[in-house]
Amino acid sequence: MKIIKDSVHDHIQVDGVARDLLDTPELQRLRNVSQLGTVSLVYPSANHTRFEHSLGVYHLACEALEHLSVEGTRAERVRAAALLHDVGHGPFSHNLESLTHRRTGRYHDDVHELLTDGAVGDVLRDNDLEPAAVADLIAGEGRFGQLVSGELDVDRMDYLVRDAHHTGVPYGTIDHGRLVRELTFADGELVLAEGNVQTAESLLVARALMNPTVYSHGVARISKAMLRRAGERLLEAATTDIDAETLQRMDDHDLIVALRSCESTTEFSRRLDHRDLFKRAVWAEIDDVPGGVIEASHETIREFEREIADRADVDPTQVILDVPSRPSMTESTTRVMVNGDVRQLGQQSPLVEALRAAQYSQWRLGVYTPSALRDRLGRAAVDVLGLDIDGALVSEVRNGLDATLDQFVE
Amino acid sequence: MKIIKDSVHDHIQVDGVARDLLDTPELQRLRNVSQLGTVSLVYPSANHTRFEHSLGVYHLACEALEHLSVEGTRAERVRAAALLHDVGHGPFSHNLESLTHRRTGRYHDDVHELLTDGAVGDVLRDNDLEPAAVADLIAGEGRFGQLVSGELDVDRMDYLVRDAHHTGVPYGTIDHGRLVRELTFADGELVLAEGNVQTAESLLVARALMNPTVYSHGVARISKAMLRRAGERLLEAATTDIDAETLQRMDDHDLIVALRSCESTTEFSRRLDHRDLFKRAVWAEIDDVPGGVIEASHETIREFEREIADRADVDPTQVILDVPSRPSMTESTTRVMVNGDVRQLGQQSPLVEALRAAQYSQWRLGVYTPSALRDRLGRAAVDVLGLDIDGALVSEVRNGLDATLDQFVE
Amino acid sequence: MKIIKDSVHDHIQVDGVARDLLDTPELQRLRNVSQLGTVSLVYPSANHTRFEHSLGVYHLACEALEHLSVEGTRAERVRAAALLHDVGHGPFSHNLESLTHRRTGRYHDDVHELLTDGAVGDVLRDNDLEPAAVADLIAGEGRFGQLVSGELDVDRMDYLVRDAHHTGVPYGTIDHGRLVRELTFADGELVLAEGNVQTAESLLVARALMNPTVYSHGVARISKAMLRRAGERLLEAATTDIDAETLQRMDDHDLIVALRSCESTTEFSRRLDHRDLFKRAVWAEIDDVPGGVIEASHETIREFEREIADRADVDPTQVILDVPSRPSMTESTTRVMVNGDVRQLGQQSPLVEALRAAQYSQWRLGVYTPSALRDRLGRAAVDVLGLDIDGALVSEVRNGLDATLDQFVE
Amino acid sequence: MKIIKDSVHDHIQVDGVARDLLDTPELQRLRNVSQLGTVSLVYPSANHTRFEHSLGVYHLACEALEHLSVEGTRAERVRAAALLHDVGHGPFSHNLESLTHRRTGRYHDDVHELLTDGAVGDVLRDNDLEPAAVADLIAGEGRFGQLVSGELDVDRMDYLVRDAHHTGVPYGTIDHGRLVRELTFADGELVLAEGNVQTAESLLVARALMNPTVYSHGVARISKAMLRRAGERLLEAATTDIDAETLQRMDDHDLIVALRSCESTTEFSRRLDHRDLFKRAVWAEIDDVPGGVIEASHETIREFEREIADRADVDPTQVILDVPSRPSMTESTTRVMVNGDVRQLGQQSPLVEALRAAQYSQWRLGVYTPSALRDRLGRAAVDVLGLDIDGALVSEVRNGLDATLDQFVE
Repeated sequence: MKIIKDSVHDHIQVDGVARDLLDTPELQRLRNVSQLGTVSLVYPSANHTRFEHSLGVYHLACEALEHLSVEGTRAERVRAAALLHDVGHGPFSHNLESLTHRRTGRYHDDVHELLTDGAVGDVLRDNDLEPAAVADLIAGEGRFGQLVSGELDVDRMDYLVRDAHHTGVPYGTIDHGRLVRELTFADGELVLAEGNVQTAESLLVARALMNPTVYSHGVARISKAMLRRAGERLLEAATTDIDAETLQRMDDHDLIVALRSCESTTEFSRRLDHRDLFKRAVWAEIDDVPGGVIEASHETIREFEREIADRADVDPTQVILDVPSRPSMTESTTRVMVNGDVRQLGQQSPLVEALRAAQYSQWRLGVYTPSALRDRLGRAAVDVLGLDIDGALVSEVRNGLDATLDQFVE
Repeated sequence: MKIIKDSVHDHIQVDGVARDLLDTPELQRLRNVSQLGTVSLVYPSANHTRFEHSLGVYHLACEALEHLSVEGTRAERVRAAALLHDVGHGPFSHNLESLTHRRTGRYHDDVHELLTDGAVGDVLRDNDLEPAAVADLIAGEGRFGQLVSGELDVDRMDYLVRDAHHTGVPYGTIDHGRLVRELTFADGELVLAEGNVQTAESLLVARALMNPTVYSHGVARISKAMLRRAGERLLEAATTDIDAETLQRMDDHDLIVALRSCESTTEFSRRLDHRDLFKRAVWAEIDDVPGGVIEASHETIREFEREIADRADVDPTQVILDVPSRPSMTESTTRVMVNGDVRQLGQQSPLVEALRAAQYSQWRLGVYTPSALRDRLGRAAVDVLGLDIDGALVSEVRNGLDATLDQFVE
Repeated sequence: MKIIKDSVHDHIQVDGVARDLLDTPELQRLRNVSQLGTVSLVYPSANHTRFEHSLGVYHLACEALEHLSVEGTRAERVRAAALLHDVGHGPFSHNLESLTHRRTGRYHDDVHELLTDGAVGDVLRDNDLEPAAVADLIAGEGRFGQLVSGELDVDRMDYLVRDAHHTGVPYGTIDHGRLVRELTFADGELVLAEGNVQTAESLLVARALMNPTVYSHGVARISKAMLRRAGERLLEAATTDIDAETLQRMDDHDLIVALRSCESTTEFSRRLDHRDLFKRAVWAEIDDVPGGVIEASHETIREFEREIADRADVDPTQVILDVPSRPSMTESTTRVMVNGDVRQLGQQSPLVEALRAAQYSQWRLGVYTPSALRDRLGRAAVDVLGLDIDGALVSEVRNGLDATLDQFVE
Repeated sequence: MKIIKDSVHDHIQVDGVARDLLDTPELQRLRNVSQLGTVSLVYPSANHTRFEHSLGVYHLACEALEHLSVEGTRAERVRAAALLHDVGHGPFSHNLESLTHRRTGRYHDDVHELLTDGAVGDVLRDNDLEPAAVADLIAGEGRFGQLVSGELDVDRMDYLVRDAHHTGVPYGTIDHGRLVRELTFADGELVLAEGNVQTAESLLVARALMNPTVYSHGVARISKAMLRRAGERLLEAATTDIDAETLQRMDDHDLIVALRSCESTTEFSRRLDHRDLFKRAVWAEIDDVPGGVIEASHETIREFEREIADRADVDPTQVILDVPSRPSMTESTTRVMVNGDVRQLGQQSPLVEALRAAQYSQWRLGVYTPSALRDRLGRAAVDVLGLDIDGALVSEVRNGLDATLDQFVE
């Protein structure tokens, strides 16, 4: 048994298979993968890692299993999955995930291979756990998969509280102690027990407020887009032989030094290192963006960028077009007991629809470029993308936003 | 200058007129008025008082004024109002307010008399402040009245954080540091500066989640109704000569001992002291309650109680009918800057409407009685009030609710 | 089972005999007994009660027993003792203890009678626990008595953290999670396991810093002395028939109202209510005070007061002589494992001796009186008590101290 | 003006020269220098950086200056020094400082060159501040140098609280709000005002408890020694041309990747990456170690290592001898006002001497090696170093210690 001191959950007791997994290189590597990637450029104290988060998720899983009275191999399997649920993350966690996914076809929670091979596979088998079964849980499959990856998973409970602790933004401070106590199973599905509509809503609201304030903060989005672009150039560089698989297994240190060393990424790397970031040339609401742009493939987006650069007569490396996918809200299917029936939160709570609408209204397409090029590029982008806004407004609104950003930001 | 250590804001520096006001009996009395009344029967660590809350409100007012660059007499007046804003509270704060209001015509924020007479009036005049002007601010009047009592007042910012700290329920943990920094004036109205839609929403959401979980928790409502009824019987008792004015100037100690001593309230007093509370015989949603009941006057409600008692053949002192007023949400008029315009939050944020709907769906009429009488009384109440629910359902739902309550309660 | 939300330990799960004890009037009464008495006149947010503290001690006892693998009746007995350990407290906790002890011969931890009679006795017996055995644990007797009342008891672990939470003074923030995990038994004695010399020291240091800053803060001592004197006058008053036994069973509300009502205590009562306190006329170090004064009986002290009043020609009710007992430090016998041996902390840690010396140097005799009488009274007290300081110095030092006090105080 | 959200001090307002300094590469680099180096191998959430700490120190300096009523250029200079005080740190902060100091003759607080050249020099001069004057403050020189680097500096106040927040170890939770308020000048020296002996003691005690628990935790020491050895081998490697100056200007990313890439450090690098650390072969108290060993130069220590390896017949790369310097306690000269006089804390408080003795008793010489070689190496080291302990005891005590370490560690 090992007892680990954590800044969020205080003492975390690590037993059984988890104790052995702790010493694997796969898990130790997560010490060097930042939880929130470039968010630390906005909130300087947000330097926490996937390692401590994994311990936290494991801890909450143990508590939830205890309250659910689940024991034996089934419980041990869930605990292993909780601890391992993020070993598939590449450097800077989600920041480069779309990039590597395009080339490897794998998201971070597809870990069948990782869990079968190497030290992790050995440890699991030595503890009589089937790697594939653990990987299934991480993919959210099966009755207990919902606890590891689902609307009511312990992953979310940990990261909201942890991200609040480290950024200083209080919105994520949910009542995780109550959540894990109130989980129960009804008809094979994980639900919150009677009397917890507000508990479920609070989880939803916490995410909805953390999203624009932290995870999708304007400056975090710009720097993430720059990092992603730098990663793409690194993979395409003739002078290196780094492929997506290799990139995916790097940690933050490897990637940062690779970007500093590779000629075609030094400029991005310098900008990220010195926090000399691109600025917004365009920041457009969803209703002002043609459907074709929102649904565009990665190749089409790159094509748009070249056209915009062309029209504005600037170097194409100076343009980043950042189009988020359409808003979705998975928590709407969270199940709660209400007067003895299982109900979906979306049916029960008017908040779900409102938060969905809020998310929709917060969606923004961004075009980023060095400060000096903003005006030229803004007008070009409006034309090329067919945005339903006039150029003058673009820069006016933008300046207001930047003034704001410049204040509550680092 | 005095520096006071506070569990929420750490060090509070008290200067000028506030320093002198601190020593008045009117302010010192607030040490003996609990902030949340009977909520401590649900959350046992919620024993904080109106005194520490008043200091916190004063502290946030000082910060807000500094960020707004308001100085001189105008600022001093606001600071005095912030510190004094709760001197009008009777024992157990809001718990008995409807009772005393019916007889005195005054709510707790009507303090013109209190601020003119006695030590407070002397201190204000000695500091060249007009008592009436300070009382106006407390009533929310004028440009700066909004800061003391309005949608964006520092009162709310303090109590949400303080109540969270003392109950242990995290939902109230707002970012008050950001709120006071982002206040500004536009067209003479207090607004939140650009980029703060989420900041405004977070304030709204915090209240919306604290409400059912803390302020209107079922057991808090029952005990509050019992205390109110006891207070009413005290005023009506032939053996005492306590009138509403006297009651209003009591503190918690006085009232509790008075209830223990007066023959017609000893039973309620024993029940409150021993936490041997009435239970819910009926707990009905707003759509199941005839409009006439919702709008009924206090006299009509007392009449209903007697009828219910009659029909169930129990002593009328064993029945309490608790009908909250219709839900309202004042924060919907909170003003925020959006793209250079002042907008009402209700226009800007879909959350406002959703929270209003949630509030509506949480509204409940309650009929309370000793445990043994619940079944008889529940049926009688359904009949007398013309509720649109069937008697069997009443007790079934109720039992589910009580099981829940019994768990997350003390 | 009941789950109670606590501001310090979050969720506290109450089972078994504890669940039944919770509903007894004896335990519910602790809701109305403040944990720190008059300390709230210095730290206004310190309004926590013996009830929440009792729950906290119960919670830590449960955790310690789990780590010690103690189960069954033996564990249930300890849990009952932990929850009940403070039911013997009178109003304002320790503040009046010396007063009632002189007349009843009982301290607050002598609860054999209280636990045998009434509802508590019934609950204990219904749960097959012998009241006398539980009372013995509360008195610190037997192997497990050390856990409830000893150098390493859970009482101390809870109050240090709780008092820090509510006063805002961080010194009490110990690592209670580690302490309860590291308790073990060696040769029938409770000890801290290997590697915990610092853990033990931290407990000691926390008390040593909380003592002068919180528990024995000058203003807390003055107001406590005034309350004690008021209590004494109440017992002596011809117009009431309150005896020490009755006083001991009161709660804070009863006592405060009794003091307000009784003619011979209204003046003290008004001063305490309005925080219009006596000031220090003398504040003397231990080396300047004759041994005879330090060891004086209560009667002799009252005699000294009358002599001082006489010599200064003031009313004897205006003089309070406050002589603390000689410093002691029980924690020095805390046992820790060092290199496989059980050692007393006093042997192992040079801190113990230093803290004892610090305590000695912080000891002060105080003479308190209304502000206007300080000079006359100070000189008289120096003469009557034979203090080894000169009168001029007295007032000089005192003024410096008061300036300080006036700053970091409320 | 910029407002930055910090997890410790909430909002930090950055103005004037500090606003400009923030954008320099020298300051931004500190984002990639961990505050506690290898301590994160013991406390996994301790991933905070020198950047956020620098902001915190700047913030406390601003507060202290305000309370001291210092304004104008003098204040601006101190604020610049506070923000810049750590720009001289190499990768992993103090971990490699002895290594680079031996070769460059500079400690991290010798920043005259760094502050004169480059962007920082430009910003300082543009703001009419003399770089040399700012560097002097960082070196602790002059009246205000004490505030930046001295017994009562804001550096310490920030790091204690911050390290507590991030490790989860509460001992560092000092009352920094009170400390900065109570600073004053007497006879040109920074002192704590009257009534703050405990405040001063609390600072001392916080360090004394954090030291063995965090900063010098056994596993932190082992991993730091391994990192230092790896750094030394990197500088000596024929295959790289990294010199001490270059190493000193690296950040954590550069160093880690350099260690992974250089053939002669890959083994250490793998061990650190996988947390597969050396273990203690010897752990000796100061009284058992000959003075010659304690005072030995770096070369002599390397010589001892080779002799030990020789005698045990193992490869010399498998032995690390770790000899801390003799304990010292600078805080003993902290000045506090007592009864109107300035006194050194060492004179006033018996705690100082006790903490010095505790420090002395905690001193340990360590010999580290892979697990399998411990017994052989332990015996050899005892012989070579002439330690006054017998071989059997060595391994016995060691095993006890490891059991402990294995528990409260990660």
